[in-house]
Amino acid sequence: MINRPAGPEILRLIDLLAKLPGLGPRSARRAALHLLKKRDQLLGPLSAALADAASKVQACAVCSNFDTVNPCSICAAPGRDNGIICAVEDVDDLWAMERSGVFRGKYHVVGGTLSALDGIRPEDLNIAALVQRAGNPDVREIILALNATVDGQTTAHYITDRLSHLPVKVTRLAHGVPVGGELDHLDDGTIAAAMASRR
Amino acid sequence: MINRPAGPEILRLIDLLAKLPGLGPRSARRAALHLLKKRDQLLGPLSAALADAASKVQACAVCSNFDTVNPCSICAAPGRDNGIICAVEDVDDLWAMERSGVFRGKYHVVGGTLSALDGIRPEDLNIAALVQRAGNPDVREIILALNATVDGQTTAHYITDRLSHLPVKVTRLAHGVPVGGELDHLDDGTIAAAMASRR
Repeated sequence: MINRPAGPEILRLIDLLAKLPGLGPRSARRAALHLLKKRDQLLGPLSAALADAASKVQACAVCSNFDTVNPCSICAAPGRDNGIICAVEDVDDLWAMERSGVFRGKYHVVGGTLSALDGIRPEDLNIAALVQRAGNPDVREIILALNATVDGQTTAHYITDRLSHLPVKVTRLAHGVPVGGELDHLDDGTIAAAMASRR
Repeated sequence: MINRPAGPEILRLIDLLAKLPGLGPRSARRAALHLLKKRDQLLGPLSAALADAASKVQACAVCSNFDTVNPCSICAAPGRDNGIICAVEDVDDLWAMERSGVFRGKYHVVGGTLSALDGIRPEDLNIAALVQRAGNPDVREIILALNATVDGQTTAHYITDRLSHLPVKVTRLAHGVPVGGELDHLDDGTIAAAMASRR
């Protein structure tokens, strides 16, 4: 009983919460306690929401976005441009693009970046499916909206190569000063890129 | 669809996760995505653990600890001393005491501290039940292990007053230098208390 004051149900809950990104053992204990205190407002609803997500949400067979329908509601949306596909690293990048509201085409979630260090090869990513989609005669442009990291840009290079035999235009997001960003806080590479692409 | 790329099930999950202490909107999105990616290892088990906790865990009728049995396993433990009750602010303080392994009596969770600012009065806390338990002739000592904050110490003063008509001994945790702590990092109040209680 010493060192294990809570029952196995509570300990298991804490252990699982501690596996969420952003929560450690200590904050997982606080979260578990908060849940137990707010049984009706939070514990019950979160339990139901997780069960709901587990049973209904799946990865879209076309673009790998998460949704309750397959193909996802973005792939199925009639008002969106089928001729432009925006390739992103991960679903959260797709969500960020959608929050910005500037893109009205379709998406393709690559599922990560190539990484010699972590042993992630092209066949571990969702690249072959992107090349196949790009081969559709309706598709005019592939936007490589991968993160501006070394691995992200390496992956963008690789995908550009793989698409070079196709008649599609391949573009990338512009580098530059973030809107609202101060020069003083930017690295030299960003300033150099912003200067080179000055308008 | 713009700004709301994910289905209502995912948005609801993110909203609920964002209500956990330590998670904001951004980290809740990351946590939701992590859960959806680790469906079998994390989403399913966490969903089951929450449902389990919601259906089985309850507050102990004696001490207000959380457990699957009522009275809780600490209150029901035959090997623990019924004559000493350690009053703590919250269940996480009880857990911290149990982890330390130094206390073999019973507990009483006060459920917070008195606070004029937040309008928390004695009747909002679990104090009357503590006074009633302290009136049991078996009880020899009440340890007030409330936090060393202004509100915690105000509450300890108030409880001491309420217990003054009873023949129980009322003690508090010693103030002093934390074990492993450096003097340089301690506030003046702690150093003064440690000096005054030097042995």
